[in-house]
Amino acid sequence: MESLKNAVLEANLDLPKYRLVTFTWGNVSGIDRKQGLVVIKPSGVPYEELRTEDLVVVDLEGNIVEGKLKPSSDTPTHLALYRAFPTIGGIVHTHSAWATSWAQAGRGIPPLGTTHADYFYGGVPCTRLLTENEINGAYERETGNVIIETFNELKLNPAMVPSVLVNCHAPFSWGKDPHNAVHNAVVLEEVAKIAYRTYNLNPAVELMDQTLLDRHFLRKHGAGAYYGQ
Amino acid sequence: MESLKNAVLEANLDLPKYRLVTFTWGNVSGIDRKQGLVVIKPSGVPYEELRTEDLVVVDLEGNIVEGKLKPSSDTPTHLALYRAFPTIGGIVHTHSAWATSWAQAGRGIPPLGTTHADYFYGGVPCTRLLTENEINGAYERETGNVIIETFNELKLNPAMVPSVLVNCHAPFSWGKDPHNAVHNAVVLEEVAKIAYRTYNLNPAVELMDQTLLDRHFLRKHGAGAYYGQ
Amino acid sequence: MESLKNAVLEANLDLPKYRLVTFTWGNVSGIDRKQGLVVIKPSGVPYEELRTEDLVVVDLEGNIVEGKLKPSSDTPTHLALYRAFPTIGGIVHTHSAWATSWAQAGRGIPPLGTTHADYFYGGVPCTRLLTENEINGAYERETGNVIIETFNELKLNPAMVPSVLVNCHAPFSWGKDPHNAVHNAVVLEEVAKIAYRTYNLNPAVELMDQTLLDRHFLRKHGAGAYYGQ
Amino acid sequence: MESLKNAVLEANLDLPKYRLVTFTWGNVSGIDRKQGLVVIKPSGVPYEELRTEDLVVVDLEGNIVEGKLKPSSDTPTHLALYRAFPTIGGIVHTHSAWATSWAQAGRGIPPLGTTHADYFYGGVPCTRLLTENEINGAYERETGNVIIETFNELKLNPAMVPSVLVNCHAPFSWGKDPHNAVHNAVVLEEVAKIAYRTYNLNPAVELMDQTLLDRHFLRKHGAGAYYGQ
Repeated sequence: MESLKNAVLEANLDLPKYRLVTFTWGNVSGIDRKQGLVVIKPSGVPYEELRTEDLVVVDLEGNIVEGKLKPSSDTPTHLALYRAFPTIGGIVHTHSAWATSWAQAGRGIPPLGTTHADYFYGGVPCTRLLTENEINGAYERETGNVIIETFNELKLNPAMVPSVLVNCHAPFSWGKDPHNAVHNAVVLEEVAKIAYRTYNLNPAVELMDQTLLDRHFLRKHGAGAYYGQ
Repeated sequence: MESLKNAVLEANLDLPKYRLVTFTWGNVSGIDRKQGLVVIKPSGVPYEELRTEDLVVVDLEGNIVEGKLKPSSDTPTHLALYRAFPTIGGIVHTHSAWATSWAQAGRGIPPLGTTHADYFYGGVPCTRLLTENEINGAYERETGNVIIETFNELKLNPAMVPSVLVNCHAPFSWGKDPHNAVHNAVVLEEVAKIAYRTYNLNPAVELMDQTLLDRHFLRKHGAGAYYGQ
Repeated sequence: MESLKNAVLEANLDLPKYRLVTFTWGNVSGIDRKQGLVVIKPSGVPYEELRTEDLVVVDLEGNIVEGKLKPSSDTPTHLALYRAFPTIGGIVHTHSAWATSWAQAGRGIPPLGTTHADYFYGGVPCTRLLTENEINGAYERETGNVIIETFNELKLNPAMVPSVLVNCHAPFSWGKDPHNAVHNAVVLEEVAKIAYRTYNLNPAVELMDQTLLDRHFLRKHGAGAYYGQ
Repeated sequence: MESLKNAVLEANLDLPKYRLVTFTWGNVSGIDRKQGLVVIKPSGVPYEELRTEDLVVVDLEGNIVEGKLKPSSDTPTHLALYRAFPTIGGIVHTHSAWATSWAQAGRGIPPLGTTHADYFYGGVPCTRLLTENEINGAYERETGNVIIETFNELKLNPAMVPSVLVNCHAPFSWGKDPHNAVHNAVVLEEVAKIAYRTYNLNPAVELMDQTLLDRHFLRKHGAGAYYGQ
């Protein structure tokens, strides 16, 4: 649990380092699958003051197991994703500006080049809008539910598409651990920026070739990967 | 008064830190409501040279109570806002580039997503243009007056919409104290940037749902707030 | 002459500090009007290696009076401007990205708001394209000549419009001394950025009101100025 | 070989310094023409950990001559270019955001101003898309081949046009040595940014005059160059 806490702390501190957050607009969590416990950032605490002992440990139903502070208000979203996506080990939520612009526009980010294909096996989807009932109900849990619904309907594998845009809101990213989740959040922001500019240069640009998408994704992922050491 | 001066100094120094200003293009003030005195940046002094003793203390009619330097040329705008908006404790004026672009375009910033809704309960309005008489008259005070007129006509509560765009000019933001005013100015700039890009991605984007706007604003403000510690 | 050299050195070093240049793409000069001598950056020397003794002193006809290095290849442009505009004391040339984009687009930057009006009494003009003869002839001197022609034809006062865009090329700015010239180059870049975004937000935006332009320019310049200490 | 290794290390470390790369998305190589050996970055190693002894030495057929790590997965592209372009001494590949946006849009960058002309003697071309067979075959070598095909068909001299955009992918740049290749990659990114904004300001902008292009390119290159010391 201490090593997970350290990983979650470090991943949270990476958010301002990679310029993914303004003020406290973001949070990272990590899960210990054996114990079924999640470590998450406390709500509204500035990153520069954040210490390991401020982190909050909750179980998968949201009961606080350890910690003196309130967990992030987005905790129910994280928990819904951990329950539904058994392969993921860390989650990050930010309002990073480029990805948030696509989310506010209600548009997913289509695969337009190899930078995208190196990390996302297809487009990054954008959810539907939440209903009034969902917003007025368990809003943060429903945010998780609409992400899960989106992945189910599009038959997406969260291990192969590690980000989503919540319509009218902002992105969530995940990964095998908290560090990897932040890595994917950085990539998402870069991909969102490049795709924005690509459409400005060529509004009629077509989706990239599926063969090229396969080649790049599988160069970095899976049994046949040959990128890296 | 010393603690207010320190707060005003620190808030002014935050302007370059958050990249809200070029050269001396901005100023922050704070008010001591009991004494009816306002502390404000002197005119045209670079931030790197600014010290507590350079700050100017004026009363609500603009009479200099303390200080060897001339107060900001925008002082009459600040004073008009303090007189009309009794709930605010600090004001900031900048020419931050994204918000200024909206002001020059003569467009308010509509609520397009939760980042906006976390801080602004509705759109950030843009004032009408000043008349020739207003410009040739007490220009800086009239700038305050047109802000007040805008809030009155739109029936806006300045505590719930803590920023405005002055048409063809630039933004003003405010808050419960100088630090909070700068916080809101940072948010305004971020929201202006994201909204700009949202419209580029989707020129026909609709305003966000009022229910979602309510949910996010009230998550952070008022009796039912549950964000933060 | 030593104090002018120091001023020119410092102004050149301000170019990377204000992010106005990539590599060696810029130069600043200053003039001693009594002696009729100009101090200018040597050609192609990186800013981080630049020292006072590297600067080159030339007379107004371009004869080298002091210095072991070749002066900037743009020296004839600087000299043409010093000869034609007797009120200016420093000149800066950069390829700063926002202003250069307007120059490449062949468009002057119209006055759209008070940020512009605080420094430029009207639009920043863009020159006509040079003719083939001018390009094949004394190209750098002709670059100066077309700037002068532009100011003469538009009846502009270089003390009140301290920048120009050379069509298909990049901006030149000037001021009462080298430091002030760089100050104006920073402002030009900021104004170019804000105007670009303004047109994106409102392609039909109108020029700002002349009364407001007068008010802001004269607030900072001339006998009636009341900005600053 | 040690001095080449040092040059390649330094050039790789320049990539994050000039903000051309996110994470490990880039690589620089250099060639010793006498020995026919190429030094290249190892695959997937973070720049902050990279040391001289991590670099990999390969011959022009891709056989590893020295080094414990796997070379960059893009090595076959580098080798194809070294074999086909005998005048180049260093190659850099990045996913720098502005140039990548043009590559994803499938558009070359036309010459629109003197910043471009100072470095590129004509437009920066964009390759055709690779075929399915090329992607499924020796993909990285085919990437080199399509670059060479593009230069052959357009009759371009790689010494005078030191960059290319690979369609749907990203840029490659080169130069007389690794340092010069990175220099050109920085220029390409700047030129891509300015050209993007130029088209936004003036969608109907025409290519720059050939005479002006000649003048600027030849001011810096070839026997008649007079820029620099």
